[in-house]
Amino acid sequence: MTTPELDLTVSRVIKAPRSEVWKAWTDPASFEQWWVPAPEICRVLDMDLRPGGSFRTEFSHDDVEFRPQITGCFLAVDELERIVFTDALIGGWRPAETPFVTAVITMMDHPEGTEYTATAMHRDIADRDRHEELGFHDGWGTVTRQLAELVESQARDRTDTERTP
Amino acid sequence: MTTPELDLTVSRVIKAPRSEVWKAWTDPASFEQWWVPAPEICRVLDMDLRPGGSFRTEFSHDDVEFRPQITGCFLAVDELERIVFTDALIGGWRPAETPFVTAVITMMDHPEGTEYTATAMHRDIADRDRHEELGFHDGWGTVTRQLAELVESQARDRTDTERTP
Repeated sequence: MTTPELDLTVSRVIKAPRSEVWKAWTDPASFEQWWVPAPEICRVLDMDLRPGGSFRTEFSHDDVEFRPQITGCFLAVDELERIVFTDALIGGWRPAETPFVTAVITMMDHPEGTEYTATAMHRDIADRDRHEELGFHDGWGTVTRQLAELVESQARDRTDTERTP
Repeated sequence: MTTPELDLTVSRVIKAPRSEVWKAWTDPASFEQWWVPAPEICRVLDMDLRPGGSFRTEFSHDDVEFRPQITGCFLAVDELERIVFTDALIGGWRPAETPFVTAVITMMDHPEGTEYTATAMHRDIADRDRHEELGFHDGWGTVTRQLAELVESQARDRTDTERTP
């Protein structure tokens, strides 16, 4: 389904089970901690995790003024496996003002934990190139690292707690 | 989910059970018989009835030269109840070149058969008005009548056959 010349992908092995990665994605309070590159701040307005459900986030430099980030719609939500959303539609599948991307997030078992992959699908090469110039790899790479660090530190904390007598 | 000032709707009671209406929609050979106003001819290229599945049709005035009609993607397929598709995405949920509409088709039981409703959702009032000027009510009204006539004549034929000793 993905087409190399139209798509951009980041992938990373996260040293934690899929259930932990899934939770960090689908719990809005966790999601806000990693979804935008620090020190920017993310706020989740809608995370209605079902096909047709609204997905809206905003971001801020100063925690005072927030600007829209994603205004989109979930297309597929497969527990522990896959999340697909697009900004070509808004909640309820209505066509959006400024369509640009469909994102496919997959989580797969890996010997060291979870292989997390985020693919951005574009309508044409021009949009793909624009996304790359806008800093796709830096941006999506950074937030994927933030996701990994959050989930891995939680996994470590839990292990430490379990070891404490 | 629908918003009167952004959406256009046609509705019709079809004197046949929902299963017959569903079949006329989801069987490509039946679908081609009613989906475009006669005498134009419809050809189904893709009808992959699942979320993310490709939906492509073309039409012809002379059965020789065909032009693209719908190039879209199914978003929801709820057996005997609802079909949602959009041209804001193509198969595999990739953003489309020329997004315009999301269509929600519903079939509900009715004392006389099936209440069939087709709603076209637009991103703004301008697109809604453009669709109305392009002849939404005439076009969608005509093909809904054609659907009803096809299904009702099949239901009559079957009844006649059953009565034949």
